[in-house]
Amino acid sequence: MHASTENGADPAAPPYTVGDHLVDRLAGLGVDRVFGVPGDYSLRLLDHVAAHPTVRWTGCATELGAGYAADGYGRLRGMAALFTTFGVGELSAVNAVAGSYAEHVPVVHVVGAPALARQAEHRALHHTLGDGSFEHFAAMHADITCARAVLAPGTAVAEIDRVLMEVRDRRLPGYLLVPADVAELPAERAAAPLPPRADGTDPEVLEAFATAAGRLLAAAGSTDRVTVLAGLLAHRFGAQDDLTALLAAGPLPHATTPWAKSLLDETAPGFSGTYAGAAGSTERTREVVEDASVLVLAGVQFTDLNSGLFSQVVTRARTIELNAGSAAVGAAVFTPLELPAALGALRPLVAALRPGALPAALEADDGTDDGTDDEDHAPLSQAALWRATAAALRPGDVVLADQGTSFYGMAPHRLPAGVTFIGQPLWASIGYTLPALLGAGTAAPGRRGVLLIGDGAAQMTVQELSTVLREELPALVVVVDNDGYTVERAIHGPDQPYNDVPRWDWTALPAVFCPGGRVRAVRASTVGALRRAYAEAAADPGGLTLVQAVVPRDDVPALLATLTRALGRGTAGGDR
Amino acid sequence: MHASTENGADPAAPPYTVGDHLVDRLAGLGVDRVFGVPGDYSLRLLDHVAAHPTVRWTGCATELGAGYAADGYGRLRGMAALFTTFGVGELSAVNAVAGSYAEHVPVVHVVGAPALARQAEHRALHHTLGDGSFEHFAAMHADITCARAVLAPGTAVAEIDRVLMEVRDRRLPGYLLVPADVAELPAERAAAPLPPRADGTDPEVLEAFATAAGRLLAAAGSTDRVTVLAGLLAHRFGAQDDLTALLAAGPLPHATTPWAKSLLDETAPGFSGTYAGAAGSTERTREVVEDASVLVLAGVQFTDLNSGLFSQVVTRARTIELNAGSAAVGAAVFTPLELPAALGALRPLVAALRPGALPAALEADDGTDDGTDDEDHAPLSQAALWRATAAALRPGDVVLADQGTSFYGMAPHRLPAGVTFIGQPLWASIGYTLPALLGAGTAAPGRRGVLLIGDGAAQMTVQELSTVLREELPALVVVVDNDGYTVERAIHGPDQPYNDVPRWDWTALPAVFCPGGRVRAVRASTVGALRRAYAEAAADPGGLTLVQAVVPRDDVPALLATLTRALGRGTAGGDR
Repeated sequence: MHASTENGADPAAPPYTVGDHLVDRLAGLGVDRVFGVPGDYSLRLLDHVAAHPTVRWTGCATELGAGYAADGYGRLRGMAALFTTFGVGELSAVNAVAGSYAEHVPVVHVVGAPALARQAEHRALHHTLGDGSFEHFAAMHADITCARAVLAPGTAVAEIDRVLMEVRDRRLPGYLLVPADVAELPAERAAAPLPPRADGTDPEVLEAFATAAGRLLAAAGSTDRVTVLAGLLAHRFGAQDDLTALLAAGPLPHATTPWAKSLLDETAPGFSGTYAGAAGSTERTREVVEDASVLVLAGVQFTDLNSGLFSQVVTRARTIELNAGSAAVGAAVFTPLELPAALGALRPLVAALRPGALPAALEADDGTDDGTDDEDHAPLSQAALWRATAAALRPGDVVLADQGTSFYGMAPHRLPAGVTFIGQPLWASIGYTLPALLGAGTAAPGRRGVLLIGDGAAQMTVQELSTVLREELPALVVVVDNDGYTVERAIHGPDQPYNDVPRWDWTALPAVFCPGGRVRAVRASTVGALRRAYAEAAADPGGLTLVQAVVPRDDVPALLATLTRALGRGTAGGDR
Repeated sequence: MHASTENGADPAAPPYTVGDHLVDRLAGLGVDRVFGVPGDYSLRLLDHVAAHPTVRWTGCATELGAGYAADGYGRLRGMAALFTTFGVGELSAVNAVAGSYAEHVPVVHVVGAPALARQAEHRALHHTLGDGSFEHFAAMHADITCARAVLAPGTAVAEIDRVLMEVRDRRLPGYLLVPADVAELPAERAAAPLPPRADGTDPEVLEAFATAAGRLLAAAGSTDRVTVLAGLLAHRFGAQDDLTALLAAGPLPHATTPWAKSLLDETAPGFSGTYAGAAGSTERTREVVEDASVLVLAGVQFTDLNSGLFSQVVTRARTIELNAGSAAVGAAVFTPLELPAALGALRPLVAALRPGALPAALEADDGTDDGTDDEDHAPLSQAALWRATAAALRPGDVVLADQGTSFYGMAPHRLPAGVTFIGQPLWASIGYTLPALLGAGTAAPGRRGVLLIGDGAAQMTVQELSTVLREELPALVVVVDNDGYTVERAIHGPDQPYNDVPRWDWTALPAVFCPGGRVRAVRASTVGALRRAYAEAAADPGGLTLVQAVVPRDDVPALLATLTRALGRGTAGGDR
């Protein structure tokens, strides 16, 4: 107590604790919201959240929803936190945590546990398996987190710092199990913020990489023969500015994978579309990517749904591949070499090339269908739905497209500048985007969230719409009502009962969640009704509009139809 | 093909497969419903469910809901199955599976996985972590299942049989990972049902136990000095009839723990209430249990919330303790000895005792509050709510009381004969009972489900009410609307924002879930309104009535108040 008084602390203030240290560290990493559901083992820990001057508790209806919300927040902020309680709470959230792992989102999962003094008695406490062990659920996080700690006296502060730094630096989730009594132990206020991430690049490796890359680029001759394909990891490892600078140094033709959609300005000269392999790209995008003399892969990971089921055409001998911590020129690997440094090394090499012409600018709906069903009175089709939705987007929107018809319907459409696009094509957990809207909306105050989600998916996480309403987030929510799991119908069993879902009246939901509240809810089964709903939503930018967009049961976007036909074969182990 | 034709199979029928064997084995174990959510890795496996003559697919809105539903079904049927898809699906359900483990419910978790032919390529398939490994999620089931198998050619049928028998015999969950191609491999139709469980009792051990128990009982002298306290495992290990026979042999005074509530007929002579330790029992129940000359514990496990926070008073020297596979007389342990055999051995010993008088019968509301707030116009209180609810129960009802005010409000009330009571006091995952209503209702067709659940809990799993409506189950659903997590307010932080939940208009829900459907939905804030709602529900026994019962925010049942005060100290590691 004496020491902290000397440091200027108010002697009447409550003692500074391990719990306070944790919340302060989160705040120091830019976290101003944490998501979760309380439980009796975590209540006192949450007192430290509630008392914090800049971090706000955001209670969710479910732990899975809180986990998805934290993921959405982490995608925009580069760090997020999820607070749950022992056993029942943490296990409800593991699907979200695993999704953050698959999709490289830094989320720390903080779990309130029984006090060590209680654990030592090894009795059958509630939220346990009844066997006196308290280690089962931490073990279940081993495969889905990059760092874990069970906090203990003496090492709690150091362990918190270690886990948070690993989460920050590796862009993967972490796990902190916080016994209730350890959270209340006194701690010293940290004297300094966490040290920044150490640069892992070896200068000699960087130089060798530049030499090799320079040879390959020089052989290409002119900038129009060099294409950049940008992937998700360029976003996750903070290389966005380096990437933009590289593109400008040419200027170079470029594209993104669907997973990285919105990483680059889709209205910029040289942007050539979304590349998802031979099976998932327009002819024009394919040409720009596949026929380049040199292809620069910047943080690209090809996954099945991100590559038209591995139909990408990449010739290693003329490819420069940049990953998070290594790079390759043809078959030669250079490591340790970080993505931003590698991009920086390419810039002068590109600038030295002979200037070539960029490909012509994309039309707004380039690569999508022909639009013959877009008349006002026409019944809504999938194609018309996504065209109208793309046309209704405004700069600054955060678009969340749930895996399914929403993701594949939107992916081919060109986005306005400044739009952020969020999807989950690797983990592909349906229902994810609804709570992610909560996370993204709180991470980017004032920006409108545009949620695009199927009915079966929205039923999975519908209760978090109540949380979105409580937080008064501006949003346009489009529920694609097509009477079941349409993606699955397209893959297998179009008329099987397991692909049915109960049909809801989504327009009746606001009366449940927000008695007396002001929410617009509209059912649209024609193109005209949809457009009017979007226009009314635009006229009330701070409000929430829910549109139940009714489309035919077995209609699927063109891109998805290609994928699902192949998946229907592949998942049964047949030919591909 | 030739062999199966010789066996009388229709040569035009589709070939018999591993998937068919799995579903047939489930049917052979009495399963006529399976619960789950489809996914593209499981669709073809589900074809075998859809095609089965006696097993019905019951699609749920979420995997967690499906897991809870399977648990509810398994409690009534002694075997249940949950079908999910790889990664996203199975991880959404692990909280339910862990709950089945803690509460000894036999549920097999069947997960559809990518075909082995695809796994062998080690690529980044959707629903994986992107690292080419397919082993992470099976590993996450290691601590929460008693048996696991990853099905492979050659051993799939034997592994299915092994896991199902372990689940059946140990009354714990199991896990089957079913690669899509393995499910389609040809299999022989099983020639015989699974062998019955082997009796684990050693006759010499049984005899020695009987001798020791006989000495202790003889010293007690008369039947009124011998009390039986029945616990959950007596239900789980099928000892209900043996237990009833033992009680009749005296007749003996008896009680149950809250966890085992409804295991015994609460209107029978000798029933002396629900024993939850010194802190959680009426004086009268305590006397019968704690002052007996000999106390027979029949399948009792004392957990914190099942024992008034371990306040039970059990003197080992005069206790006969019967567990699933062993028994103890005083400090002497007898094993292997199964519970039904041990109960059977006690019966003649009890019959030989001098007959004593049974304690006087319990009043219907013995042990509950005084009822002064039960007038029609009185605002609803917790005490009046549970009294009115207890009075509205009918023989045959299946009562599901969610952990929280519902469980502790109902536990002290005497149930009519033939009522089944379902709670989850060890795992204590709020929201569990709503999907469990689906499982219990389908397991016991024609019996009315009575769901008692808090508003915060019901928000966790609300979407499965839509499934309950689709299945047209007769039900009375009581949502206790008290504006937040009341149990947690009572434990800690009564006015903290983390204990708030958004307030819903529950009566507006049927319009969402069941457009045009016939559901009664009523808001009741007085005793009279509640009683009228219950009377209307009783007049339509096949329908569904939803009652939003509004009670004061910080009102808690008396039993719970005692517990939460202690928990508020205990969870912070303080004194107890």
